[in-house]
Amino acid sequence: MPGIVPDRTASSQPQPELRRDPITGQWVILAAGRSIRPHAPGRIPSPASKRELPDECPLCPGREALTPPEICAVRDGGGKDCPGWSVRTLPNKFPILLSEVPHAGAERITIPGRRPALGSSEVIVDTPLHGKPPWEIGPAQVEEMLKMYQDRIRTLKSDGSTSYVHIIRNHGRGAASSLEHPHSQLFGLPFVPPDIESELDGFAAARQETGACILCRMIEEVEDEGELMVLATGNFLVFCPFASRLPYEAWVVPRRHQAKFEECSELGELADLLTRFMLRLKERLDDPPFNYWIHTYPLRDESRPYHWHIEILPRLTTPGGLELGAGVWVNIVSPEQAAAELR
Amino acid sequence: MPGIVPDRTASSQPQPELRRDPITGQWVILAAGRSIRPHAPGRIPSPASKRELPDECPLCPGREALTPPEICAVRDGGGKDCPGWSVRTLPNKFPILLSEVPHAGAERITIPGRRPALGSSEVIVDTPLHGKPPWEIGPAQVEEMLKMYQDRIRTLKSDGSTSYVHIIRNHGRGAASSLEHPHSQLFGLPFVPPDIESELDGFAAARQETGACILCRMIEEVEDEGELMVLATGNFLVFCPFASRLPYEAWVVPRRHQAKFEECSELGELADLLTRFMLRLKERLDDPPFNYWIHTYPLRDESRPYHWHIEILPRLTTPGGLELGAGVWVNIVSPEQAAAELR
Repeated sequence: MPGIVPDRTASSQPQPELRRDPITGQWVILAAGRSIRPHAPGRIPSPASKRELPDECPLCPGREALTPPEICAVRDGGGKDCPGWSVRTLPNKFPILLSEVPHAGAERITIPGRRPALGSSEVIVDTPLHGKPPWEIGPAQVEEMLKMYQDRIRTLKSDGSTSYVHIIRNHGRGAASSLEHPHSQLFGLPFVPPDIESELDGFAAARQETGACILCRMIEEVEDEGELMVLATGNFLVFCPFASRLPYEAWVVPRRHQAKFEECSELGELADLLTRFMLRLKERLDDPPFNYWIHTYPLRDESRPYHWHIEILPRLTTPGGLELGAGVWVNIVSPEQAAAELR
Repeated sequence: MPGIVPDRTASSQPQPELRRDPITGQWVILAAGRSIRPHAPGRIPSPASKRELPDECPLCPGREALTPPEICAVRDGGGKDCPGWSVRTLPNKFPILLSEVPHAGAERITIPGRRPALGSSEVIVDTPLHGKPPWEIGPAQVEEMLKMYQDRIRTLKSDGSTSYVHIIRNHGRGAASSLEHPHSQLFGLPFVPPDIESELDGFAAARQETGACILCRMIEEVEDEGELMVLATGNFLVFCPFASRLPYEAWVVPRRHQAKFEECSELGELADLLTRFMLRLKERLDDPPFNYWIHTYPLRDESRPYHWHIEILPRLTTPGGLELGAGVWVNIVSPEQAAAELR
């Protein structure tokens, strides 16, 4: 298939750039160099091709020299870029956002609708064990991972150049994971992404209309009616949202109204809950591919209210022309049934 | 996998409903009954399971009795629901939108954020040949299909209850096609979908700012610069948009400023161009899965300007947590390279 995998070395790969859709005004990240990644998702290579083996995985302890130097790590012993870590954060080897203006692309800044893709692209290796996501190790490992998420958000905020930090996990090839070793990804974006803008507008409209937080009200309804509830602790709920876009979509939400994930202080309790939910998802849906992401407050000043939450989206169906061409989602499993199965 | 394929008969399947996301205000179609479809995409059943054979395909001529009675057809001979047709439009056997309020769900109308999914769900069988999409038969077949698209939009407009007609094609399992026989799908929606709202806003903002149509201006730039151009005729262009969301995204656009696809009168020329482009896509990208859809004017009164176009999206990569959780697309092939390969 000519062109899909360009014959380029990493050193000559084009620099990522941002391009703005002239009609909708939304930014796209053009990262043409990523097509040379060894395990890019989709047809590149085909899903049947072999995955990396534990004995050649660049994210396993002992192979730190295969990755760019670490940004930070939680470790009991050992020095920088040595084994002994339990969570390790690296610059992405195939970044879609760059920490500084690439020299060769600097002249592009003046072209309207086009600018260098400035930001952060990080990989959080959230377990040293190749075959075990953090929740299969235990809540303490999940808590370390959540602490790392908070730490990275705080650090990027203090740097002052990032507008929004989007932290995700792609689990399984069907959810676009390109490396088998369990890891999260962090994108420090130079703009607030459209899905967060849309939620901020929704929170603002609801507050203007009712004086209340719309997510606080959703929590009350979920608790009153019970049908959408999956798990609950003193400070958190897991439920399937009323207008779930896809089968078995679930949200993890703090009961207390709080805008910023990085200010959440009950990480032990959250880690316990996430561990229980993740193990249940694996058991009840046969280890499905899934994505999760944290929806939290922008790093820049903002007058609209917000209530942070984690969204978990199993990938059991393929979106088609109605979803991708109109933005209308079709869900073939009712959220009430999904919640009942996950309870 | 319990629950993914509920043990229900078609007669007891729950009625589709619309649910409004309380935060973003966007409607989701909940069509729980669709999980019983024989060939639902994704894991239901697994991609490895067998497809329908031509000798059991419900869309092939001679098997009209296996489908609901046709809505209309183009035919040289034969009567309603008999062979002899070249294009045939049917109600979807597994509709996600219903033509009338289901009796059992009528009481739901009063619940805020929840209403019966009223609208149209149609299948356009756009070739009688099981193994040949219309462009492999020839431009005349493509023209018949385009005429049917226009005819259905005009008819639904005259009915007065539809806000927007979204016509799509899902080609290949990787693009969510659930039946092998070439077909298009039509959704007569009771609201203007978010992606069209967003484009209408963009056209309106650009006209206010510059007095011109933003898509007319994009056409001029594509022609002046040449790098994004794929194919051109007297009245139409095919190009890769500057801010393509995914590799090899292509738009088919009329040069003349025109809001409504159903008013396009050069269907023969458009069919020729589409035929050439589709054959080229198959040849150059090894018959990729793809979606296309028509972006056109809403059926209800509307003050914002528009310029209709067809968007074609090959499905070569899998969207992950950045695309689905933030609405930010990462494109790993530059539109200039994509256009060069497709020229």
